[in-house]
Amino acid sequence: MPRRYVNQLADQEQVNEVFVASGKQLRTNRNGSLYLQVELSDKSGKIPTRMWNASEKLYSSFDDGDYVRVEGATQIFQGAMQMIAKQIKTVPESEVNEEDFQVLPPADMDALAGRLAAMLRAMNNPHLCSIAECFLIDQELMKKLSLAPAGVKNHHAYLGGLMQHVVSLMELASQVGQHYKDHLDPDLLLMGAFLHDLGKVDELGYERDFIYTEEGQLVGHIVIGVRMLEDKIAQASELSGEPVPDELCLRLKHMIVSHHGELQFGSPTVPMTIEAVALHYLDNLDAKVHSFSQLIREDPNVDSPWTTYQPGIGRKLYKGSRQSMGAD
Amino acid sequence: MPRRYVNQLADQEQVNEVFVASGKQLRTNRNGSLYLQVELSDKSGKIPTRMWNASEKLYSSFDDGDYVRVEGATQIFQGAMQMIAKQIKTVPESEVNEEDFQVLPPADMDALAGRLAAMLRAMNNPHLCSIAECFLIDQELMKKLSLAPAGVKNHHAYLGGLMQHVVSLMELASQVGQHYKDHLDPDLLLMGAFLHDLGKVDELGYERDFIYTEEGQLVGHIVIGVRMLEDKIAQASELSGEPVPDELCLRLKHMIVSHHGELQFGSPTVPMTIEAVALHYLDNLDAKVHSFSQLIREDPNVDSPWTTYQPGIGRKLYKGSRQSMGAD
Amino acid sequence: MPRRYVNQLADQEQVNEVFVASGKQLRTNRNGSLYLQVELSDKSGKIPTRMWNASEKLYSSFDDGDYVRVEGATQIFQGAMQMIAKQIKTVPESEVNEEDFQVLPPADMDALAGRLAAMLRAMNNPHLCSIAECFLIDQELMKKLSLAPAGVKNHHAYLGGLMQHVVSLMELASQVGQHYKDHLDPDLLLMGAFLHDLGKVDELGYERDFIYTEEGQLVGHIVIGVRMLEDKIAQASELSGEPVPDELCLRLKHMIVSHHGELQFGSPTVPMTIEAVALHYLDNLDAKVHSFSQLIREDPNVDSPWTTYQPGIGRKLYKGSRQSMGAD
Amino acid sequence: MPRRYVNQLADQEQVNEVFVASGKQLRTNRNGSLYLQVELSDKSGKIPTRMWNASEKLYSSFDDGDYVRVEGATQIFQGAMQMIAKQIKTVPESEVNEEDFQVLPPADMDALAGRLAAMLRAMNNPHLCSIAECFLIDQELMKKLSLAPAGVKNHHAYLGGLMQHVVSLMELASQVGQHYKDHLDPDLLLMGAFLHDLGKVDELGYERDFIYTEEGQLVGHIVIGVRMLEDKIAQASELSGEPVPDELCLRLKHMIVSHHGELQFGSPTVPMTIEAVALHYLDNLDAKVHSFSQLIREDPNVDSPWTTYQPGIGRKLYKGSRQSMGAD
Amino acid sequence: MPRRYVNQLADQEQVNEVFVASGKQLRTNRNGSLYLQVELSDKSGKIPTRMWNASEKLYSSFDDGDYVRVEGATQIFQGAMQMIAKQIKTVPESEVNEEDFQVLPPADMDALAGRLAAMLRAMNNPHLCSIAECFLIDQELMKKLSLAPAGVKNHHAYLGGLMQHVVSLMELASQVGQHYKDHLDPDLLLMGAFLHDLGKVDELGYERDFIYTEEGQLVGHIVIGVRMLEDKIAQASELSGEPVPDELCLRLKHMIVSHHGELQFGSPTVPMTIEAVALHYLDNLDAKVHSFSQLIREDPNVDSPWTTYQPGIGRKLYKGSRQSMGAD
Amino acid sequence: MPRRYVNQLADQEQVNEVFVASGKQLRTNRNGSLYLQVELSDKSGKIPTRMWNASEKLYSSFDDGDYVRVEGATQIFQGAMQMIAKQIKTVPESEVNEEDFQVLPPADMDALAGRLAAMLRAMNNPHLCSIAECFLIDQELMKKLSLAPAGVKNHHAYLGGLMQHVVSLMELASQVGQHYKDHLDPDLLLMGAFLHDLGKVDELGYERDFIYTEEGQLVGHIVIGVRMLEDKIAQASELSGEPVPDELCLRLKHMIVSHHGELQFGSPTVPMTIEAVALHYLDNLDAKVHSFSQLIREDPNVDSPWTTYQPGIGRKLYKGSRQSMGAD
Repeated sequence: MPRRYVNQLADQEQVNEVFVASGKQLRTNRNGSLYLQVELSDKSGKIPTRMWNASEKLYSSFDDGDYVRVEGATQIFQGAMQMIAKQIKTVPESEVNEEDFQVLPPADMDALAGRLAAMLRAMNNPHLCSIAECFLIDQELMKKLSLAPAGVKNHHAYLGGLMQHVVSLMELASQVGQHYKDHLDPDLLLMGAFLHDLGKVDELGYERDFIYTEEGQLVGHIVIGVRMLEDKIAQASELSGEPVPDELCLRLKHMIVSHHGELQFGSPTVPMTIEAVALHYLDNLDAKVHSFSQLIREDPNVDSPWTTYQPGIGRKLYKGSRQSMGAD
Repeated sequence: MPRRYVNQLADQEQVNEVFVASGKQLRTNRNGSLYLQVELSDKSGKIPTRMWNASEKLYSSFDDGDYVRVEGATQIFQGAMQMIAKQIKTVPESEVNEEDFQVLPPADMDALAGRLAAMLRAMNNPHLCSIAECFLIDQELMKKLSLAPAGVKNHHAYLGGLMQHVVSLMELASQVGQHYKDHLDPDLLLMGAFLHDLGKVDELGYERDFIYTEEGQLVGHIVIGVRMLEDKIAQASELSGEPVPDELCLRLKHMIVSHHGELQFGSPTVPMTIEAVALHYLDNLDAKVHSFSQLIREDPNVDSPWTTYQPGIGRKLYKGSRQSMGAD
Repeated sequence: MPRRYVNQLADQEQVNEVFVASGKQLRTNRNGSLYLQVELSDKSGKIPTRMWNASEKLYSSFDDGDYVRVEGATQIFQGAMQMIAKQIKTVPESEVNEEDFQVLPPADMDALAGRLAAMLRAMNNPHLCSIAECFLIDQELMKKLSLAPAGVKNHHAYLGGLMQHVVSLMELASQVGQHYKDHLDPDLLLMGAFLHDLGKVDELGYERDFIYTEEGQLVGHIVIGVRMLEDKIAQASELSGEPVPDELCLRLKHMIVSHHGELQFGSPTVPMTIEAVALHYLDNLDAKVHSFSQLIREDPNVDSPWTTYQPGIGRKLYKGSRQSMGAD
Repeated sequence: MPRRYVNQLADQEQVNEVFVASGKQLRTNRNGSLYLQVELSDKSGKIPTRMWNASEKLYSSFDDGDYVRVEGATQIFQGAMQMIAKQIKTVPESEVNEEDFQVLPPADMDALAGRLAAMLRAMNNPHLCSIAECFLIDQELMKKLSLAPAGVKNHHAYLGGLMQHVVSLMELASQVGQHYKDHLDPDLLLMGAFLHDLGKVDELGYERDFIYTEEGQLVGHIVIGVRMLEDKIAQASELSGEPVPDELCLRLKHMIVSHHGELQFGSPTVPMTIEAVALHYLDNLDAKVHSFSQLIREDPNVDSPWTTYQPGIGRKLYKGSRQSMGAD
Repeated sequence: MPRRYVNQLADQEQVNEVFVASGKQLRTNRNGSLYLQVELSDKSGKIPTRMWNASEKLYSSFDDGDYVRVEGATQIFQGAMQMIAKQIKTVPESEVNEEDFQVLPPADMDALAGRLAAMLRAMNNPHLCSIAECFLIDQELMKKLSLAPAGVKNHHAYLGGLMQHVVSLMELASQVGQHYKDHLDPDLLLMGAFLHDLGKVDELGYERDFIYTEEGQLVGHIVIGVRMLEDKIAQASELSGEPVPDELCLRLKHMIVSHHGELQFGSPTVPMTIEAVALHYLDNLDAKVHSFSQLIREDPNVDSPWTTYQPGIGRKLYKGSRQSMGAD
Repeated sequence: MPRRYVNQLADQEQVNEVFVASGKQLRTNRNGSLYLQVELSDKSGKIPTRMWNASEKLYSSFDDGDYVRVEGATQIFQGAMQMIAKQIKTVPESEVNEEDFQVLPPADMDALAGRLAAMLRAMNNPHLCSIAECFLIDQELMKKLSLAPAGVKNHHAYLGGLMQHVVSLMELASQVGQHYKDHLDPDLLLMGAFLHDLGKVDELGYERDFIYTEEGQLVGHIVIGVRMLEDKIAQASELSGEPVPDELCLRLKHMIVSHHGELQFGSPTVPMTIEAVALHYLDNLDAKVHSFSQLIREDPNVDSPWTTYQPGIGRKLYKGSRQSMGAD
């Protein structure tokens, strides 16, 4: 029987399936008895799960990040789906089909990495090419980039999400750079799209659950990202025997530093070049299209043309019923 | 001798040339004597001009919008170029080369109109096509659209500027719509790009000088634009004998109503569909790329890598010296 | 025995009474058993109600908007009164005293409609009179106006509430217009008070529960209201054979468009005429007096001189104990 | 020949008339020669005036506040009317018609004071009546009140302006209090209208020119006003032999303290009673109606339907041409 | 056996100890049965407590503020420690060790009062000394000052907290005043530190639980504090036979009125003297150091280098593990 | 005859003295004739200067930064002192008394540098000491630090101003660190005070005039400062053979990154440690005390108790007349 994915589960459905556990907690209810709370996920999404009358022993029998087989049943609670588990036990990795748990399977990640490298190598500016090459040959960094999520929640918050966001933005930048080639330097814009969020590979921890690292919180991905770039610029100058022009360095750093667009969103300076201002709007566009799309796709309010109220963006979104718009 | 255009004039240069006059005023200086103040323009830009010891008679000898031949000399005053005129007299249209005064010559405008119509007619949704057709056959509206500026100042503030902005945005929307075709409806986004600013053809007056009309100020282009759309929807339903689906109408109106993105920028509602949020960011992107580009191009601070401070955007822009970036 | 109204119920009171049901939901508690949640109302207010151990069958036995007889008992839960129902069953309309459920009984609504028409017909400006008449003879619109609430929550959120707010504001406008007759046009102000919220009859759905319509959310009552006015202006010009002066039309539309006073409250333009700015403050005054008054009247904190904290207005309100102020 | 008032002067008009001088300064122009700058006013308004080639001696020959006879001519300078004086000399008070200089002549001020007292004495609450009486019998305070302007600029900025604003607001409060008598205490609202700005009699200096006093700037009229009220409450309790109830005192002080409505406008607390919130909106209404009206009346842009841009309110105002609205 | 203090209690610990009760409520759970909710405190902190199956009789058997002996057990509930009580009964004061309940024992309070008086008496300005003396000899006021908390929650929210904050700030002001003695008047700054929050002794009620008084809410400690100062100035002038100079009075009042630094934080004026601006920053510094310190000290998240998210300050705080920083 | 310094010059005074020139411009007046505009300074301040009927040759005869002897006369123009020069010629450095031009003479700078080094070397934490030593032995950096101003305008905007601000803040931090030693780590706070603005040595150019460097504008002193610190940490680890603990590095970087206190003031993160929040308030305190003090000291409004309106801080400052406060 084919696996039922989390996003396929209906109300009142019996479940006996393997998931990845995260965020487990042993909690006391109002009457003082213990229950286990945990999130179960596969590649299609997450479902909050409770197991009543749990014990310390059960709690210690698995770790966050482990594969677990769970028996239980679903129910709608306060407008959202949850599971009530009857049994939870760990499963060895060898018995698991890893593809069920990868939002972005290895082949997709390889394809993304390939497109990323191809776009960078197609730039005309030799200095940018040699800086880009220094990033591409840094295997540890590229490995992290292929794993990191783009955020702790919101858009692209899954393994590989950062790479997916960066490649989507680069492709956008590539088209838009051509559209505005009389007004800005397409290579610079493309390189800015590649660099803007690289600091996130150290800002976020993503071994098991997604959290901000201490450095991520206290220093932030913008400052981290500028340092990464400076290291690669130094390396590129050394390798090519030719210094990268100062102005080019400044323009690149400035795109990282200003890409949030406004001081109140954490950019220490506002965009002061055309490439920087274009990067800011494109980054926002890509983030918003993906997060709106995800909120609509995962909305539990299935019978309504509206999503539930989304406090993060201060509004409901309109889903409507697209089939009725005559677009057959 | 070929004409010297406004943007070619240097300091302390003798001028004897034809311009379009606008914003003429007869003013008194501190000592009580009269002088004339007027702006002179050709297709390349505008130069503020003063003529000392002017008279009522001279002031009445031409109107804003007239072609005038001016003798005088340029100078830098408070960091900007101005002209001191010695003589001003009207010139009949027949003696003028109209091409010297059209930012966008008729051939360009025709090409823009052609691309606009082609993109609209290439949409797949039949309802959108028939609404679009109702706009395209409205000759008075299309005439206005080909004349209107996109604003009183800032980006695209010249005859034909609105058409240029709309077509640029539609081309962008067309590419970006394909890029995100799994997340949004490309036809809707394209139609939104076409519709979003149409109300400006009645918001702005552009016979001679650019001003807001009374309706433009008191009601605003968003409300005007929704009404235009409603008229065309009614017409399309009637012509095709098939009502345009309600949801489609709502989605179109919503894109107009929300395209400023935030209440404080004059949108009565925030974007609540993916197409509406994408339109908002693309509109901002196109406006900012063009206005930053224009500010840099026209900056009088020729020897500095920075523009003068721009109060409208609260910053200086960085011009740098692109030749030094190794991009040959 | 006379009926006990919702606002008369005390803690731990046995209830056996007829109510209107709304917002029914069948929900699962933490242990997986089903309960029913519903709001019960009469003309004096609403009480949230739960019925434990409910079934699908019970849930389907009545609809929102039905009259139901409920047996149960009240209790204070988290600072607010609620009811625990033991039995719920529908009651035919014929067995119900409709007056128990009308906040504003038909006679009151007729009186309001009469005062509204009288004030409009007493205006001096013939154009305004003929536009007003076009509204008054539109029976469908006047019917909706007599039913619509003024909002989904907050002030005047009950059937007929919009009419009540509009008439209160018109009476205020009428007095204040006289007070400032040297500074503004009293007829314009009165007409603005009539028009400002008319778009709400289509912005809100109020057949059963109060909700925003899709058009209400995506387009908003301001844009809807301008269109209504434009239709009536066209009709009035046709009927009278005399066009309504452009400036008058603009001043009317501007009052609708700007009545929220600031862009960030959803007005696409700020008030730029004296009548528009006066309308804005009077509308705010009427809304705030009614909502503060209602918050104080319905506050469950009976022993305290303060209401509970009201997040919507960011403060507590002071109730005090007015009897102690020497006003006998 | 009847006097030509300041608001009747046209461009290029010869003037030989008596004015009140204020704000005189002896200044140096760019070439180092001296000129005199002064404002000349009568009851209809003010005109900025310059006298070229002035001397220390002329400068010392009159004081701000003196009556001076001026010979000169008007001119439009930078969009506003100004005068170029040829001669300035003082005039004894005995030769002057004082009525030409009083915006509000003594008879008007007496009428205002009479209406103010009548409204206060008509209140029903005996405590409020006895507090009010303590104010009315304080001749020094009432004298100041009849002189003070309501502000240094903006609305009611002329001698007697504070009294005029207070009486207008009290009349409004009186009507509105009746309108809302089911929701609030009309006497409290009326008393609040009387009290809200009383601190301004010490906040502003108005002997000659209008300035903020040091106490006005450093402490503010709200804190000053509360102290005034506390003194009168103590006096009223003593006179009547009966303490004013604490709650009544608090409600009065609260109306003063909160009447600016929001913390960012200088109120240390927001309105938390119905009377306080009503007072806030009525105060704003009266101020805005008067200031918009004055801006429109005094606008120098006589040929335009719009006033000049008003930075204080961030907008232009629409004047239109009311005669065309069919109101005969 | 030594007492276990609230901040020493671990999860699942049996408790049989004396506490002070506050905030008791008798509430109904979802099933309609009664439970008691109360907060128990000693000098080390507070623990929320529930007792299931409570009765009206139990609820009436003690009052907020009483000493009660409680038997029960602790548990972690929703990330915070709480207690489930089995038995609660009052204990006579005579059987209680009062020191267990005083955050600041009498000896500490006496020391603080001593330091406060010494600093005030060491000022050089005789006027300030005599005003200060009028405060010091007002025994009722000094008593209140030694009891009042500095706030209802946040920093220094315990009996004596206001005195502790005032003395800490005065000591800071004393050092900083010396550091900047070329720029400001150290005595003024010290006196401002003493005066700035004195109005809080009447703004807050602190007999049993900490609440805002009606005057505190409706008028605010700033206005109250200015009145206190005015009374003492009058008294000082009378006692010394020499009026306090007006400017000195204004400077003192201004420090009280402006010490919140910005209008939106409730100061009716912004700081306009150097002493006032210095006082504002020092007050903020002292409040923030103490509140951050307390949030870190009391954070329940013992295993994490971060505190829980603190909505009041919009951030988490970093605790780290200071032992690892090489500071031995 | 002793030199008359800029801040001693009165209106209408004849001047024949040596100054440093800066900001020279050759400009055209309205009539087209040329004049020279330049700022002349000595250690006491700056005076804007104009020379009428200037020539290209004069303009080229000296450079910004040169010593020039100027003959001319002072005058008050638009409320501020300016000079009208008759003659300007360069003076060799050898004929100049350098002390007349140093706000902070070498001896003072040496003393500041000595105090700075002493405070750093007195820290207890060995890691901090060794990092500090790496800064102290970097002669190029220390040289820059002793020259840099703290800003382009506002507080400490003169050569050596940055050092003066840093040392003042360190002394403050040293005292305040002791005051709060139970709550924070005094060494960390002191080190933060030393580090917080170091990036300004590269953000600002100060060879001749004070300007932001391109890196300063496009990247900002916060990002630059973090990089400087990282270099020194690496060097310290290498020199001592012992790595600096990660947490210590993070805490230091965090103080730099967050010292503006709020995102909207350009800090990419808000303070999340006690030392960081304390540093923020102390930095603000020192900046505000110095800038308020300077605005009061240099205010041209000598006869008024108020300074002119200061747009940068949105207020006037109160100067009063301190002699009248009884402080002898």
